[in-house]
Amino acid sequence: MVKSDIEIAQSTEMLPIDEIAQKIDIQVEDLEHYGKFKAKVDYTALHKKESKGKLILVTAINPTPAGEGKTTTSVGLGDALQKIGKQTAIALREPSLGPVFGIKGGAAGGGYAQVIPMEDINLHFTGDIHAIGAANNLVAAMIDNHIYQGNDLNIDPRRVTWRRAMDMNDRQLRSIVSGIGARTNGMPREDGFDITVASEIMAVLCLSNSLTEMKEKLRECLVGYTFDNEPVTLGQLQAEGAVSALLKDALKPNLVQTLEHTPVFIHGGPFANIAHGCNSLLATKMALAHADYVVTEAGFGADLGAEKFIDIKCRMGGLKPDAVVIVATIRALKMHGGVKKTELDTENTAALKKGLPNLLKHIENINHTFSLPAVVAINAFPGDTEEELTVLKKAIEATGNKVVQSNVWAEGGAGGVELAEEVVALCEKESSLTYAYDQSDPIEMKVDKIIQSVYGGKGSEWSKTARNKAKRLEKLGYGDLPVCMAKTQYSLSDSATALGRPTDFTVNIRDLSISAGAGFIVVLTGNIMRMPGLPKVPSAVQVDVQEDGRISGLF
Amino acid sequence: MVKSDIEIAQSTEMLPIDEIAQKIDIQVEDLEHYGKFKAKVDYTALHKKESKGKLILVTAINPTPAGEGKTTTSVGLGDALQKIGKQTAIALREPSLGPVFGIKGGAAGGGYAQVIPMEDINLHFTGDIHAIGAANNLVAAMIDNHIYQGNDLNIDPRRVTWRRAMDMNDRQLRSIVSGIGARTNGMPREDGFDITVASEIMAVLCLSNSLTEMKEKLRECLVGYTFDNEPVTLGQLQAEGAVSALLKDALKPNLVQTLEHTPVFIHGGPFANIAHGCNSLLATKMALAHADYVVTEAGFGADLGAEKFIDIKCRMGGLKPDAVVIVATIRALKMHGGVKKTELDTENTAALKKGLPNLLKHIENINHTFSLPAVVAINAFPGDTEEELTVLKKAIEATGNKVVQSNVWAEGGAGGVELAEEVVALCEKESSLTYAYDQSDPIEMKVDKIIQSVYGGKGSEWSKTARNKAKRLEKLGYGDLPVCMAKTQYSLSDSATALGRPTDFTVNIRDLSISAGAGFIVVLTGNIMRMPGLPKVPSAVQVDVQEDGRISGLF
Repeated sequence: MVKSDIEIAQSTEMLPIDEIAQKIDIQVEDLEHYGKFKAKVDYTALHKKESKGKLILVTAINPTPAGEGKTTTSVGLGDALQKIGKQTAIALREPSLGPVFGIKGGAAGGGYAQVIPMEDINLHFTGDIHAIGAANNLVAAMIDNHIYQGNDLNIDPRRVTWRRAMDMNDRQLRSIVSGIGARTNGMPREDGFDITVASEIMAVLCLSNSLTEMKEKLRECLVGYTFDNEPVTLGQLQAEGAVSALLKDALKPNLVQTLEHTPVFIHGGPFANIAHGCNSLLATKMALAHADYVVTEAGFGADLGAEKFIDIKCRMGGLKPDAVVIVATIRALKMHGGVKKTELDTENTAALKKGLPNLLKHIENINHTFSLPAVVAINAFPGDTEEELTVLKKAIEATGNKVVQSNVWAEGGAGGVELAEEVVALCEKESSLTYAYDQSDPIEMKVDKIIQSVYGGKGSEWSKTARNKAKRLEKLGYGDLPVCMAKTQYSLSDSATALGRPTDFTVNIRDLSISAGAGFIVVLTGNIMRMPGLPKVPSAVQVDVQEDGRISGLF
Repeated sequence: MVKSDIEIAQSTEMLPIDEIAQKIDIQVEDLEHYGKFKAKVDYTALHKKESKGKLILVTAINPTPAGEGKTTTSVGLGDALQKIGKQTAIALREPSLGPVFGIKGGAAGGGYAQVIPMEDINLHFTGDIHAIGAANNLVAAMIDNHIYQGNDLNIDPRRVTWRRAMDMNDRQLRSIVSGIGARTNGMPREDGFDITVASEIMAVLCLSNSLTEMKEKLRECLVGYTFDNEPVTLGQLQAEGAVSALLKDALKPNLVQTLEHTPVFIHGGPFANIAHGCNSLLATKMALAHADYVVTEAGFGADLGAEKFIDIKCRMGGLKPDAVVIVATIRALKMHGGVKKTELDTENTAALKKGLPNLLKHIENINHTFSLPAVVAINAFPGDTEEELTVLKKAIEATGNKVVQSNVWAEGGAGGVELAEEVVALCEKESSLTYAYDQSDPIEMKVDKIIQSVYGGKGSEWSKTARNKAKRLEKLGYGDLPVCMAKTQYSLSDSATALGRPTDFTVNIRDLSISAGAGFIVVLTGNIMRMPGLPKVPSAVQVDVQEDGRISGLF
């Protein structure tokens, strides 16, 4: 019988976190323990350390319901690098409670390539997301209290842009009317909740190099507009001190381990559409300062995740990836070629060939748009055939990139040794990172460059609202910020059903919004869901815990 | 210059929490560290241990804006007991973030009688309140999701009684309309948020002896009614497993220390009106199993706090206090005698005499209603005069109880030695606890007994709603539960302005509600605020944090 993820995780003996820290020369006195197997790491000495590590970005094709296994591959690659004798650290995002209790389940890898203790990581972990939620909601309470207590700043209740946050899939809170029932209950207005990881506070925390820098960014967060259409900032509410105090521990990266005891930083988890979708800058920098090889990942496919990782996070943080791993599965590529989920177990080289261009476009982007060396990791599934694998290899090798099968789900690090060796070889190559656009480009040009060079589309069609917002944001002095594309993850285009490699498409720009604290302009190409809902049978109903604290039903 | 609380706290060197644990024979392997100075303690071995300690309840007169210093006295008394060589532990409630950022400030004692690290305790501490909030809101999301996904249980959206929770003073969320804007956003209904500590989950956690018992109580929580007026429980939603998993760490008591390194359990903090207002049963039992003297406190004045501590917590948990400390200040008694806050620094024995009956009534309750020995602790203030003190002493000693001045705010444990010695003497007295009512009394009789024997009123006046609810609850089988009075804390009566010792009053019973999981019937005597608001200048605007993590502006 195949063991479930949680059974594998629970049957693995963890090493004390002090021993994990020692592997990457982190001093025990810099650890703040959360039990025996989790610790926060003090980052204050970080600016004194040189970055010594090679940075490996794990990204993927456009996701399909077949699953690609990006996190599993990242974890397995880290274990494999450790297995071949490299000092390694992994840097990943922290999962949100919402999906854990919804349909997606946890997010700490799978099979024999997992981060543990997976129950803790998937539940409250060290409390960072709750701290971010509290910080977000303190700002919200201070805005409404300001309006209620006389409104000296002249905030227009109809134009409060700062939403409330909850770390839960709760569609009921997407759109609400708050402040009703009595004069003493506030000012009635339209309002709503986002899932906490969509809060700008999460993005700010993930892009800050220090507490002081975080406080400065927080001060710049836009919370709404006055009746005179002037922006109102978090700093005008004098909230940045209290908010920073709430976040002082959340800013410290968390250290845990894989099943094979590779050090893993799990820290921060911003949305990958309305935010940049990767773990914190501090965690990545800490990993780079302490390990020779650092494996990290970015959200969704390479069109969204890798693009933002490079154009936003690397640019802001002065990082440069040394190698990129593009994860794909034969199953998922067959779906891109039009095969239904129920028929994926049947060999189908025709469909594979039809779906392959999706992968090829992502390879092209990594090699040409961003000038980085890449390797394709085929996450092996039992149904994959030799014939299919040959087709795939041929196509990829024609691009001058290598393809390696990865079997880390079933075998752990041992299943990723070939991938690890190829990654090490890539890291020796000379490369110099290029960006998809210049920050100084006008907003529309930035967007068009991404559409043309990364998505492979013709250009953009702007709504009147979006065009006016762009003008307004440039006028307000935000024109030089990078853009953060909020687009469907399922397609290279803005149409979720356009699988494979769509061409000749135009991307519709519906609206813009500004994350002035985090430091990017969000470009909305459709209706982006910031608060998911639960499915008919939420996975919460299967979760249980026994008297000894053993949890079951998480996956 | 007088140092602020936070300055005193930050200038004190803490002992490693392992050393604190050793003082009360807690093994280091039973600790789960949260940094060096906080730990959760495993309670699973608790049932094997005998309770060895004397239990001292600290309660107070009806609170006034002058302040009484109940927590400060509890902390100082614990330090004083340690000072005179007694093995001591203190058990207190965890403060909520709401008041910390609002007007009240933190709640970890004051002056030289504080629990540290006070910043952590006042902010997220070990995450328990956030876990309770998440658990509460998972239930809420599952209720609305159930309704949205077909509503097999036939839940009436107008009669969902389970509210959402947030650990924030946010009046804007008291009353909302949720589920609006689109068919896919849920089912529109009236809804609202309580501050997290008012969640029934908090009360359940605080009254559970084990995880298994907590899960059973959770299953019984009422979340609403069907269209056919039948109750719907949390168990029918199959939520108790996931909720318990979210609470598995929150159920473990937290260990910290005072400025003088006395062990302190800070765990749980239910509301003192719609809930029972004292720290968790597990923390009290753990303290009693490990220390010879255990100091604990109950919310508000003795009419609410001590009554519920005894009639609910002690009865459910099989506890019996050995001595009761009633905290009063001369200033507060003068306010009960009609003096304005601005005139408290002037000697006024006439007003003192007029206010004294408030204290005398509480003494009477402890001695006669509950049959327990008491000592009055006069929390010293610089303006107190000899003349006033003499008046006070004479009046109290006439009741056969002792009165002791306590100066722990200024002197720490040294200022509480006389109080500690009196408490030790009281603990040697024989006493046998009696309750204000029998659980098997009809609901109305239970309420009347409290009003007559504890509040000193004539009886109760029931609204039609309340009377019907009582009948309905008895029919549903909840008649034998204890009652939890939700009454103003400022008066012995239900009228906040009736200071001193009101007589001949009737208490108006407006409504009842059931906390079927926690196991009590809430009796509402007025409009109880379950979600506070922020003041015009919230204390949040003064809070700041520096790069080294040092927080300022908390008090």
